[in-house]
Amino acid sequence: MSVTAKTAVPSDHPGVDELFGLLAYGQLSAFYRLASDAEMSPDLRGKVAMAGLAATDFQHFELLAGALADRDVDVFDVMGPYADTLERFHASTSPTSWLESLVKAYIGDGLASDFHREIVSALPEDVREIVRQSLEETARSEFVVAEVRAAIAANPQERSRLALWARRLLGEAVTQAQHLAMQREALAELVMEAAGDINNLAALFDRLQDEHARRMEALGLS
Amino acid sequence: MSVTAKTAVPSDHPGVDELFGLLAYGQLSAFYRLASDAEMSPDLRGKVAMAGLAATDFQHFELLAGALADRDVDVFDVMGPYADTLERFHASTSPTSWLESLVKAYIGDGLASDFHREIVSALPEDVREIVRQSLEETARSEFVVAEVRAAIAANPQERSRLALWARRLLGEAVTQAQHLAMQREALAELVMEAAGDINNLAALFDRLQDEHARRMEALGLS
Repeated sequence: MSVTAKTAVPSDHPGVDELFGLLAYGQLSAFYRLASDAEMSPDLRGKVAMAGLAATDFQHFELLAGALADRDVDVFDVMGPYADTLERFHASTSPTSWLESLVKAYIGDGLASDFHREIVSALPEDVREIVRQSLEETARSEFVVAEVRAAIAANPQERSRLALWARRLLGEAVTQAQHLAMQREALAELVMEAAGDINNLAALFDRLQDEHARRMEALGLS
Repeated sequence: MSVTAKTAVPSDHPGVDELFGLLAYGQLSAFYRLASDAEMSPDLRGKVAMAGLAATDFQHFELLAGALADRDVDVFDVMGPYADTLERFHASTSPTSWLESLVKAYIGDGLASDFHREIVSALPEDVREIVRQSLEETARSEFVVAEVRAAIAANPQERSRLALWARRLLGEAVTQAQHLAMQREALAELVMEAAGDINNLAALFDRLQDEHARRMEALGLS
């Protein structure tokens, strides 16, 4: 948590439901994409590992649906508006190989986690705790790092191809995030208020880039 | 638990690892089939419900993998031999509609549960407890009953079509079970020992049919 928010955002800010809705659809769509991508796994171990990531995403979805219910909000109402954007992201970043799907799982999950963690650091403890739990990076994702590093070691040409792929993932994520910022007013306000001012917002995006770079390095793709 | 076993089977019977392996691959393949079938859901609620069934199957897989690890057995070693048979079952019963996928989820899960419960009733408490937990029918499957009944009410012609489909599922399951009984000696021995004698085995299969009939009735398909 490195954000020093200038304003504390109340937990009844309408952007909180929006944030939970975005997160909920994100986890649900990740569940289905991971389960589908696992078809490309060359072996049963990869399939089990991917199923594990997907099942964890669904647990997170349930956590968010429960938190929304506690706020008297139906998860289906608030996640609906995010379906198009997230499906567009997935459609434009459909992996064509097992390695691409692994990189996407790792980079995508990481970006989503960092973004949401940054935002909620300015929110009250109860909201922060839900988001923290729903974005827990499990030890499971370590299998991704091991698989990708082994593949690059065996075939160095994969490195630049996968690095390009990861850059495309980041680019598409930024594109869709900008799209949401224009479309979803309450969410955009929440992000601005959480950041404090426009300078802090720029710093926030710098930190996201730094974390992305750190993850690329972990995969051996920097 | 209606079986009165004539013989108590020890928990170190080699068939126990086989049973856990069969069950583990069954849960893993169910996870992937449910996640894939959910594409046919007409709405987001169906997708969430199906993801919930799939995620539960994966938790059961993990429970079995853990129980095998406690027995110093690698889940990948024991489930491998069952992959072909279970994939053949799924390939021969690939749903072509959302309703077919719901009926398959309900009937398939139910058959597997009943079969394994019958077998383990003759096994020691520790083994029985693992199987019981790994086959817990959650309240989630109630959404299947509600959806299928509503569909039949709206379109009575669906009833005979889905009843035929359910019969085919049972037929394919029996075919593949017979295949396994011939191929997997330790498992077949376990089943025989658990039943006690050939008369009890016949009674066991009668009970499976009865439970299937009860489930068909619950779905409004009898």
